[in-house]
Amino acid sequence: MMKIAVDAMGGDHAPQVVIAGIEQARDQFSDLEFLVFGDEPQIRKYLHNDQRITIVHTTEVIENNDEPVRAIRTKKQASMVLAAKAVKNGEADALFSLGSTGALLASGLFIIGRIRGIERPGLMPTMPTVDAAGRGFNILDVGANAENRPNQLYQYALMGSVYAETVRGIKNPRIGLLNNGAEEHKGDELHQETHKLLAASKDINFVGNVEADHLLQGVADVVVTDGFTGNATLKAIEGTAKIVMKSIKHAILDQGLKEKIGALLIKGSLSKIAAKFDVSVYGGAVLLGISAPVIKAHGAADARTIFYTIKQIRQMIAGQTIQRVVDYFDQHQITEEN
Amino acid sequence: MMKIAVDAMGGDHAPQVVIAGIEQARDQFSDLEFLVFGDEPQIRKYLHNDQRITIVHTTEVIENNDEPVRAIRTKKQASMVLAAKAVKNGEADALFSLGSTGALLASGLFIIGRIRGIERPGLMPTMPTVDAAGRGFNILDVGANAENRPNQLYQYALMGSVYAETVRGIKNPRIGLLNNGAEEHKGDELHQETHKLLAASKDINFVGNVEADHLLQGVADVVVTDGFTGNATLKAIEGTAKIVMKSIKHAILDQGLKEKIGALLIKGSLSKIAAKFDVSVYGGAVLLGISAPVIKAHGAADARTIFYTIKQIRQMIAGQTIQRVVDYFDQHQITEEN
Repeated sequence: MMKIAVDAMGGDHAPQVVIAGIEQARDQFSDLEFLVFGDEPQIRKYLHNDQRITIVHTTEVIENNDEPVRAIRTKKQASMVLAAKAVKNGEADALFSLGSTGALLASGLFIIGRIRGIERPGLMPTMPTVDAAGRGFNILDVGANAENRPNQLYQYALMGSVYAETVRGIKNPRIGLLNNGAEEHKGDELHQETHKLLAASKDINFVGNVEADHLLQGVADVVVTDGFTGNATLKAIEGTAKIVMKSIKHAILDQGLKEKIGALLIKGSLSKIAAKFDVSVYGGAVLLGISAPVIKAHGAADARTIFYTIKQIRQMIAGQTIQRVVDYFDQHQITEEN
Repeated sequence: MMKIAVDAMGGDHAPQVVIAGIEQARDQFSDLEFLVFGDEPQIRKYLHNDQRITIVHTTEVIENNDEPVRAIRTKKQASMVLAAKAVKNGEADALFSLGSTGALLASGLFIIGRIRGIERPGLMPTMPTVDAAGRGFNILDVGANAENRPNQLYQYALMGSVYAETVRGIKNPRIGLLNNGAEEHKGDELHQETHKLLAASKDINFVGNVEADHLLQGVADVVVTDGFTGNATLKAIEGTAKIVMKSIKHAILDQGLKEKIGALLIKGSLSKIAAKFDVSVYGGAVLLGISAPVIKAHGAADARTIFYTIKQIRQMIAGQTIQRVVDYFDQHQITEEN
């Protein structure tokens, strides 16, 4: 039985959609058990049956505008803090929240703790690709850090590789370095040094530099980048996809009868495209480098996304993703090189 | 009469499309004169009439894979080098090329020279926005540099502001700093320090941090960023817009008769969207910080884009964009602060 600690109070529609997603996953996967942290009366209101679901009543909630480190230290009865403590104490195998990314990072770092040898955990979503294989790509760090050093990016490559293999079932995942050109000398010192570390490693399948306009084409299974560039790149991709789709929808629907009929005829095809760029089926963003699976879903996530995120967490536990990273760093004792 | 030095040998379809674009602009704007550098027999082959067009025969061409600084030093008879020298010597007011960005940057820096006081020129395209005003935005640096310091980003803000006012006719242009969050303390040291410089300046209309997913919504008229992040963001936006549009096209046209009829009905609307994201009407990317207008159009640009780029150059000369920047820095003697 795998046990997931869920912070039920994070996100825009908590705890309703969180409970709906949990029940869906509980019904589908008989090997899952949940420790649900939050306001018990509110949770009970939406819960249909509590089979394999244990509610832990909590009285505080961390808000998105709370200063993260301060919040986890002062709001000791917060659902996120107590859920993290349950993972720390071995009462649960993984932590899942839709709440503040900063507070979740702080909870991971200061309550659960880093994997020994890991310098800086990185935030890693899974994104779609439009190539024939269409298996998507992981990218990290997308914002857990504002700055990174070469060895940290190398650690992202190692961890991302294990994740892609154990969770996504990709053998020998292709690792790319996000850079401003294909040639190996490209970029600033950080990226030049990182390129050397990645190229020298026998433990990853490094395919060289990749550029931001090619990521959706599936040029790499795992893209490593510093948290600042990764954050801008992820937001640029998500924002642009959303805006282009929305513009098309408006351009068609705000027109006359002819366009409305045309829109009806191609509706199915457009939905398929929208589905292709729908990241919810890929689950949440993993805070990779913490000594247990810690996963963040978007605050606006619906029950379906929460279901997929739980499915992803289950795969991380079953695939022993974190244990494999722990073992690797124990064996290799990778120390700070830069 | 304004005189533009054109490197006719750069780009994928040189010199044919370059000549076509020049003739179109010459016919439309009676105050334009051209000094066209390139292989005379090839140019003559495409030229319909040489009114206000002087051909300067050159025997070498800088290729995209030439090492930029080395290329401009060894290929002394290259069309780009000789065009840059014509600007340096006052025989022309502006330099226009579709060739290697790196070589054009080197030509700007080492042949024409920087504006006094400017630390690092930045590459600045104009991008579309989908807001009601739809006036687009400028973003710099998008890759002339792999690293930047705070004062350089501040100089981009000052120069971008003058450009938006003189070329795009925007009064009091809104300047945004590309960052990983809206709050002023966000980002690494570079962005925190830059935020302070921008917020303290009385010479620009600073609207604070902007994020990459909001740029197409028109949150700022000029977005300043370091060359590494700017490069990734620009490529992510362009690549995503292209891929989403292409996916939609395929999804519709690769389907059955129903979709094909539907596609016909909405064709006009889709074209309007494609046009909205068509950056060619915005002209080329300006190498801002060089003591004359230096503009680079994409290697794949067609005659229409070349026409619009020439129109943009004309506006830069008529609006005295560079002279205003020169005057500003002469008066303020902004020196390296960081």
